[in-house]
Amino acid sequence: MVQIPEHPAPPLPAQRSVPTSADVARLAGVSRATVSYVLNNATAVRISEPTRRRVHQAARELGYVPHAAARSLRAGHSRMVLMPAPTVPVGPLYSQFFNELQWALSRLDYTVVQYGSVGLQGDEAARAWAELRPVAVLVPGSGLGPQGVAVLKRSGARAVLTLGPERVEGAHALLMDHSVVGRSAGAHLLARGRRRVGVVVPEDPGLEIFSKPRLEGVRLALRGTDATVTEVPLAYDEESAARLAGRWRALGLDAVFTYNDEYAMLLMRALQDEGIGIPDETAVIGADDLMLGRLLRPRLSTVHIELPSGQELAELVDRAVRDFGAAPETHEVLGATVLHRAST
Amino acid sequence: MVQIPEHPAPPLPAQRSVPTSADVARLAGVSRATVSYVLNNATAVRISEPTRRRVHQAARELGYVPHAAARSLRAGHSRMVLMPAPTVPVGPLYSQFFNELQWALSRLDYTVVQYGSVGLQGDEAARAWAELRPVAVLVPGSGLGPQGVAVLKRSGARAVLTLGPERVEGAHALLMDHSVVGRSAGAHLLARGRRRVGVVVPEDPGLEIFSKPRLEGVRLALRGTDATVTEVPLAYDEESAARLAGRWRALGLDAVFTYNDEYAMLLMRALQDEGIGIPDETAVIGADDLMLGRLLRPRLSTVHIELPSGQELAELVDRAVRDFGAAPETHEVLGATVLHRAST
Repeated sequence: MVQIPEHPAPPLPAQRSVPTSADVARLAGVSRATVSYVLNNATAVRISEPTRRRVHQAARELGYVPHAAARSLRAGHSRMVLMPAPTVPVGPLYSQFFNELQWALSRLDYTVVQYGSVGLQGDEAARAWAELRPVAVLVPGSGLGPQGVAVLKRSGARAVLTLGPERVEGAHALLMDHSVVGRSAGAHLLARGRRRVGVVVPEDPGLEIFSKPRLEGVRLALRGTDATVTEVPLAYDEESAARLAGRWRALGLDAVFTYNDEYAMLLMRALQDEGIGIPDETAVIGADDLMLGRLLRPRLSTVHIELPSGQELAELVDRAVRDFGAAPETHEVLGATVLHRAST
Repeated sequence: MVQIPEHPAPPLPAQRSVPTSADVARLAGVSRATVSYVLNNATAVRISEPTRRRVHQAARELGYVPHAAARSLRAGHSRMVLMPAPTVPVGPLYSQFFNELQWALSRLDYTVVQYGSVGLQGDEAARAWAELRPVAVLVPGSGLGPQGVAVLKRSGARAVLTLGPERVEGAHALLMDHSVVGRSAGAHLLARGRRRVGVVVPEDPGLEIFSKPRLEGVRLALRGTDATVTEVPLAYDEESAARLAGRWRALGLDAVFTYNDEYAMLLMRALQDEGIGIPDETAVIGADDLMLGRLLRPRLSTVHIELPSGQELAELVDRAVRDFGAAPETHEVLGATVLHRAST
């Protein structure tokens, strides 16, 4: 990056003059209340078309925009739905889901903001979110506790929803039980006649909340059979994969569930470089149904994961906001289907 | 998703009672000003340790959190840095950059929020952002015009920074000129003795702001030589890639720059399925330096893209906020290096 010359930091200058609704009212020759009714599209109040036009015209001329904070102070709540921003790279699956959710919430007149939560944990994060006085908070992953939920509710949030592996007291739970992913993969390998099943457990931090239940799911699927489960730790780099492939035959596995498709690609490459036949010697199944799995040879079997649609989730948020006295609800929202291709 | 029973939507219930700083002051036996000084960590005011403890204790007991909106109304500005949320899937590169930026800004006492902008365009989006009264706005991509910048500034934003292909009047420009990516790829293919160069242009919407300058960069690199550039439209699906591979030899190309590594994987697979030798018949180079390129065979040559560090960018935002009277600055922030591997 180009270096910029150093200036000595001046004291923060005074705020320039920001146009207010009073300025708009003066210019349009109406009351401040009328300005507020017009610009907030209040439908309960009858205001003539010419007056509406005059207010909009004056607002445009002055470059006035309503202050969401002032409005939320007046109304006692905002239309803001807050979500913590993900701190790990999001795949195309999550990205599409989030776009849909945004669309659906904006059609219901909510504004979605993703809060940068890097470095904040659990209930401390909840306090930071509460400062923005969101009307609803939708928290993916885990980490938020009952205390955090209480902080958010006391600060005026009408709905707190968690999207993760477990229920949190006081919050609506959209349960994403990733064990169903492992269970599907395990059942598939068993049905393909495999008995010595490895399960990749990523060594990279932050993935435990998914990898642990996926592993547990494979165990559940194989329980009561003569098949065995072996944990296979793996870091997401070529060297680790090559080392693992080098001692693969000593592990005596005839199948492996690779946590997801990206780990599948990494491990398949290393196994093939080692001369290990897929699926003859080792069957491989991933998860997430990414495009890259279809481009591998052999084509990768995978677990397709179904998330709730953005529309469904938006309606749920809206209902929770409107009906905020009701008891927290629990919904199972994760589905899993095996796509059988050539690698198993 | 599990269906929930339909309730008739009740009218929005009254706001439950939210603890205020006055409640905290009463419980702690101090003034509201003292509460504000303590909870906002004001360093200019001397307050004894026991008093601080009493205030924190009272705030905890009552579950009080400061209201960012009220605070920003008092101060005339917030510490919020607003970024529109990306509307296309972000790769690991962007994700890491954004995490770094968040960390660096939070160390400088700013809060980063990503605003869901799906469905909002250009200056209309700027008006929506302005309602949150951010102290700085950092806009990736293009679309924001001089009017939008003016709206943001009039609403009190001290700094507007764009991160994209062009300067916008009134805003600091962090120029990301993607033609350097194409130029690097083109120069590399030329140096490898290739003369009939295809350039993949993704048909998927939203990528033009990157793909056009990348194509232009290849043209620039080949200008004044006997080499030719052929645009190769391609959608991100197997069928399109197979169709393209089927007529590949008729195109008479000896090299292709595939826009990025993911398109490289898609096209390489299709070319190899068609029996086309890489790199003998056709050299392939991608961009982004993703892990998957190292897992392909032959290993994929790629253009490694250097983004500014989150730390550098955070310092730039902070300086622009403090020094808001200064003229907008322009910085070139994109670097590109070719990683030569076996596919070229």
